[in-house]
Amino acid sequence: MKKKVFSLLVDNQAGVLSRVAGLFSRRGYNIDSLTVGETEDPAFSRMTIVTSGEEDVLEQIEKQLGKLIDVASIRVLPAESSVARELILIKVSATAADRQEVIAVADIFRAKIVDVSETSLMIELTGNQSKLEAFIGLLGRHRIRQLARTGITGLSRGSFDEAEEAGNAAQ
Amino acid sequence: MKKKVFSLLVDNQAGVLSRVAGLFSRRGYNIDSLTVGETEDPAFSRMTIVTSGEEDVLEQIEKQLGKLIDVASIRVLPAESSVARELILIKVSATAADRQEVIAVADIFRAKIVDVSETSLMIELTGNQSKLEAFIGLLGRHRIRQLARTGITGLSRGSFDEAEEAGNAAQ
Repeated sequence: MKKKVFSLLVDNQAGVLSRVAGLFSRRGYNIDSLTVGETEDPAFSRMTIVTSGEEDVLEQIEKQLGKLIDVASIRVLPAESSVARELILIKVSATAADRQEVIAVADIFRAKIVDVSETSLMIELTGNQSKLEAFIGLLGRHRIRQLARTGITGLSRGSFDEAEEAGNAAQ
Repeated sequence: MKKKVFSLLVDNQAGVLSRVAGLFSRRGYNIDSLTVGETEDPAFSRMTIVTSGEEDVLEQIEKQLGKLIDVASIRVLPAESSVARELILIKVSATAADRQEVIAVADIFRAKIVDVSETSLMIELTGNQSKLEAFIGLLGRHRIRQLARTGITGLSRGSFDEAEEAGNAAQ
């Protein structure tokens, strides 16, 4: 099993998310994470999809996505030449007695405390997948009450831009 | 037009995203942003949907979402009693001559520089919608080459947890 991050420029219109998600669910492809948001060009949204499977399945997914009429371009973001980031919010059980211990772990990871109650702390953290998992692991003995994560978004390193991205697709 | 943030606990299985996105596209409801990710409980994923419309349409959306069998619970996250955050990656044109100016703006917003090339900088920033928009506005005269955003995720303030959330739904 391999993991791949696809970055898609898609038409900014209703129904695109439904068609992309439908393709994955009909064919039984796995979605580890999907994020979608506006870009600098109002005509396009950027969709970042993390998926895992055997090499031939990942190739199929790339081809099938590329065939959708809403998809203006599709690129693989390799770990070594791109930036991939996710944001998580974690609400942890912590009373006055063990609050300092949680805050010390948060400090090491440069996480932010964004809410405090008598029995809990809410922490915001961003990073790549392995950093987020290490943090959640270290919180270990403190009960996690709620967890919310955005899924991964990413960009390729270097000066490459959206016009080139969309242009490549039109050729 | 009002904006609402819905936080859903949904069954962690294939096809849920497709059914939720399909409901929005069939009925012509607007999705401003949607994020989905794992929770502390492997049975559930958390989906955060930001949508805008007239009050009666927003009520319809809440009811329709609540009817989907995959949806274990649905809550509105009011701005005054919840934390909502998004992560963006922005690649900006910047040569050695104007790099310092971009870095100064990034510092004010506590944004991180995550990549540098001869002609560009990549910046990572998290915050609520108004902070992110203010930052993009201030970058103004520097050309934005690429933009990737995760969409919003959020949690209610206080000690409320996922078991209560799922439990509420089962009643």
